[in-house]
Amino acid sequence: MKLLRYGAKGAEKPGLVDAQGRVRDLSGKIADITAETLTEAGLAPLRALEAEALPVVERPGRIAPPWRGMGKFVCIGLNYADHAAESGLPVPQEPVVFMKTTSAVIGCNDAVVLPRDSRKSDWEVELGVVIGRKARYVEEADALAHVAGYCVVNDLSEREYQIERGGTWDKGKGCDTFGPVGPWLVTADEVADPQALDLWLEVNGKRMQDGNTRTMVFGVAQLVSYVSRFMTLYPGDLISTGTPPGVGMGQKPAAVYLQPGDVMRLGIAGLGEQQQRVHAWDPQLIDG
Amino acid sequence: MKLLRYGAKGAEKPGLVDAQGRVRDLSGKIADITAETLTEAGLAPLRALEAEALPVVERPGRIAPPWRGMGKFVCIGLNYADHAAESGLPVPQEPVVFMKTTSAVIGCNDAVVLPRDSRKSDWEVELGVVIGRKARYVEEADALAHVAGYCVVNDLSEREYQIERGGTWDKGKGCDTFGPVGPWLVTADEVADPQALDLWLEVNGKRMQDGNTRTMVFGVAQLVSYVSRFMTLYPGDLISTGTPPGVGMGQKPAAVYLQPGDVMRLGIAGLGEQQQRVHAWDPQLIDG
Repeated sequence: MKLLRYGAKGAEKPGLVDAQGRVRDLSGKIADITAETLTEAGLAPLRALEAEALPVVERPGRIAPPWRGMGKFVCIGLNYADHAAESGLPVPQEPVVFMKTTSAVIGCNDAVVLPRDSRKSDWEVELGVVIGRKARYVEEADALAHVAGYCVVNDLSEREYQIERGGTWDKGKGCDTFGPVGPWLVTADEVADPQALDLWLEVNGKRMQDGNTRTMVFGVAQLVSYVSRFMTLYPGDLISTGTPPGVGMGQKPAAVYLQPGDVMRLGIAGLGEQQQRVHAWDPQLIDG
Repeated sequence: MKLLRYGAKGAEKPGLVDAQGRVRDLSGKIADITAETLTEAGLAPLRALEAEALPVVERPGRIAPPWRGMGKFVCIGLNYADHAAESGLPVPQEPVVFMKTTSAVIGCNDAVVLPRDSRKSDWEVELGVVIGRKARYVEEADALAHVAGYCVVNDLSEREYQIERGGTWDKGKGCDTFGPVGPWLVTADEVADPQALDLWLEVNGKRMQDGNTRTMVFGVAQLVSYVSRFMTLYPGDLISTGTPPGVGMGQKPAAVYLQPGDVMRLGIAGLGEQQQRVHAWDPQLIDG
């Protein structure tokens, strides 16, 4: 299944994408797609539905984050060897873990708003792993059974805030609008191998990132297992698994950062595409 | 007002502490204390109540985290000059910001459970600042108007995970049960000066931390203003403002870490006390 939410902020409806790519309205079946929906008990009744019997939504309008109630937004740093190299950092011995704020989450095509004095905002296409079952000291062999599904994430990052402003990376990772998620949550049964997915990102039509999840340093099962030793993962939690090479910070001869008016387009094979326009600081675009 | 929630996990009731220190039941007035309750619109009807007219709760039992729906748990590192020194780190030029997971939050007297292989779990008494009004690029002069109230926080930290396991601090900060909050949320009107509060922590009856918020490097108003430049703060968000000297990592001649059976007692003048017993790994104690 491809689950999604659509509609204006605060008035989102649940839906799914049918085999023909049309949005079908789920609001007659469930009130919303929440963390609970992503458990096996929540997904089972949806799996049993006949998609063709659900109303077609001709104009879904805005695509919202695909579920409500994300408890944690856990991120993995430097998880593609080539990206570590372009960042001038060694490949980590064990996963680098940091947290993104859940208040940074936006829909896949929502406006990205640069912080007021941002000069080094950057893009990062990433595979998002959505937890569907409580995961605590999970063995690698069992880890994927705790995954409800996958999604595209743009782990936007203000490099000056992240690297030059002291302390940890979190300052540059949790800015408002810096976490586009979606368009869909694709349930795990439809992703044959999470380590064989092409992912890419373009800025103003120019291909900047081009990778495949097979070159991850730590794979999805390893990451779920690893993170679950430091904190319990609950349904609705998201792990974003790191980005392949091609971020703005790594461009030669000089770094390239996002400017107002830029358009990012990014996607992962089978998981859909995102497109965000970059805006100068404007709080109304955040509150929508 | 001193707001609190009491009762078993998942069945908490709202209450307040009256002038005589008795718990009064608020469940006839509001369903729960949530992020919404902490806004001025949410607090106003509670302020108008006659505490003496509310039912006394003779045996409140477990004290829960004082509000539900914490969106972000933002922490400040090395914010007391003496603590930076004992950590062997310079006083930061600007606030060090990191994120604690909201899944680490527990009630003030709930069990603290060490991760399975933890060897370096440590304590940190801290002043918690609870947001009551959306804060975004707030000036220092206006910052305190965005604070609903204050609370005691124990920012438990696994030092090996935090410092020796690569990447950011977050790995050692977000472990289950590593965020006791409470007993109460004391509304801002009852805290005459947040920069003049004694705070202390004892382990097994021995005083380990003894400080006063006047020695913070960056004060509460500065911190709210500063963090609000990197992310919007919403009602229910918590900023924990750093710890004074005396953590286990800083003990001489050798660091001292928490062991199963240890009892921490900690408090802040006017904000109440916490007491946690430390347990070896036992997931049942986490799930309650």
